[in-house]
Amino acid sequence: MQDKEQLLRDSVKIVLMRTTHPGNIGAVARAMKNMGFRRLCLVEPLSLNETDDFPCFEATRRASGAVDLLKSAETVETLDQALAGCHLVVGASARSRKMVWPLMNPRDCAALVLDRVVHAKSEAPVQVALLFGQESSGLSNEELQRCHYHVNVPADPAFSSLNLAMAVQVICYELRMCLLLDNSASNANEVLSPALGAALSSAVTSTSDSWDEPLATVAEVEGFFKHLEKTLIHIGFYDPANPGMLTTRLRRLFQRTHLDKMEVNILRGILTAMQKQGDQVEKTVER
Amino acid sequence: MQDKEQLLRDSVKIVLMRTTHPGNIGAVARAMKNMGFRRLCLVEPLSLNETDDFPCFEATRRASGAVDLLKSAETVETLDQALAGCHLVVGASARSRKMVWPLMNPRDCAALVLDRVVHAKSEAPVQVALLFGQESSGLSNEELQRCHYHVNVPADPAFSSLNLAMAVQVICYELRMCLLLDNSASNANEVLSPALGAALSSAVTSTSDSWDEPLATVAEVEGFFKHLEKTLIHIGFYDPANPGMLTTRLRRLFQRTHLDKMEVNILRGILTAMQKQGDQVEKTVER
Repeated sequence: MQDKEQLLRDSVKIVLMRTTHPGNIGAVARAMKNMGFRRLCLVEPLSLNETDDFPCFEATRRASGAVDLLKSAETVETLDQALAGCHLVVGASARSRKMVWPLMNPRDCAALVLDRVVHAKSEAPVQVALLFGQESSGLSNEELQRCHYHVNVPADPAFSSLNLAMAVQVICYELRMCLLLDNSASNANEVLSPALGAALSSAVTSTSDSWDEPLATVAEVEGFFKHLEKTLIHIGFYDPANPGMLTTRLRRLFQRTHLDKMEVNILRGILTAMQKQGDQVEKTVER
Repeated sequence: MQDKEQLLRDSVKIVLMRTTHPGNIGAVARAMKNMGFRRLCLVEPLSLNETDDFPCFEATRRASGAVDLLKSAETVETLDQALAGCHLVVGASARSRKMVWPLMNPRDCAALVLDRVVHAKSEAPVQVALLFGQESSGLSNEELQRCHYHVNVPADPAFSSLNLAMAVQVICYELRMCLLLDNSASNANEVLSPALGAALSSAVTSTSDSWDEPLATVAEVEGFFKHLEKTLIHIGFYDPANPGMLTTRLRRLFQRTHLDKMEVNILRGILTAMQKQGDQVEKTVER
């Protein structure tokens, strides 16, 4: 338990996107620390632009005894910077979206995260980012597509918008409960709801039996996506001027499978081979 | 699900004791409404004494779209008034107390509450009060002893004090999850942790098989406790000037068993008989 707790604490970071109210940042810090978490990352917090005395009074007041988390919080300008080095990204989302993404409730999310963290075969700890959008609007579609999975706190449909810090509290609470009940090892598959779908559960099953390769980082997979898009344009399959849903669907597909490093290398190897072939076709045509 | 949801909504009320910050009352209202609850009861809220314009600005702001709960909130002066007509009282508590009381985590608490509400044999719906203490100090020992069970949100022991509204959020979230996962009927016993102890689990088992008598109200059980104390004094077993832990232990014993109406009548019948016997002894001595 002590080891797993430490591992979870070191692995998980809470990432807040463009938070508007400093009070909410303070409340998030307190909620995190209550549940045993320490790593807070702020992406372009709007309150910072207004006041230079961060952590400001309202954040400090609502943080109560968790001002240390505010002081040690990482503040970055882009989501890319926040996700650098991360292996698993889960984004908080409302239930209904145009494009269906693997959606979990907080309990399944906790089981999945703990499973990944505890059963990782990588040398360094698996890095997990839990992503929360702006208070009024949530995560943008682009940000949601950067996630492997989405997590939703089941609320009354008649009044479903939770306060930001409340959502963080519930999700961190479930992680702590999962740790305490030791659901991570043997029960992860049982805990996952059927609604999560076959694709996800097969991915989870694989890692539960412990994965034989280290997982790819977010940056590595993003590198693959860029490579993929470029190649698709290169081979004339994809027209950025008329994108449709193509890249979104591809992104969902590969995010859901949670690629390992070896797979990324293989896929990029294929892309490189495709590009070379395209080059040769061009050269042949030129001859 | 719809019926059970309605039943739960009508049965459960959140009772806040002497809340200091109106902002917290607003945040509680929002958290409750998000999770599908409506009934809020305020016992002597300190903020009321300061401002006459309740719901005040800070409460309204933090309530977001849940101002209707603030407006319909019941405001009373004593805990007795708040608990009138209630059958089950669960109080939020820190882990360590002098006197050990049946203590549940929020998940077990939700399973228990839903079980009691859904399987009640009484004509009117079972009334459940979830009791939360003042921000800085929590529930007093006296208030805690008015509860059948205590519920604790498991937190990092190094930083274990949750914000009031966060505690309400987590406990209401577990109730909603329990409802959604339909753990109430068949799974209540499985869901309950072994740590909850034999006494509680036997009580839960009984009600899961549906109880044959309506449960006693809080007022009825309090009437019994008063009767008991009076009788114990009367028969010379208890000296209020030198109380020790006697009444506390008795209270814990009877609260844990969750008495039904019939049992209260029987116990009070016994007390009355004991008193009469005491009277007769006195008369005999006088002769």
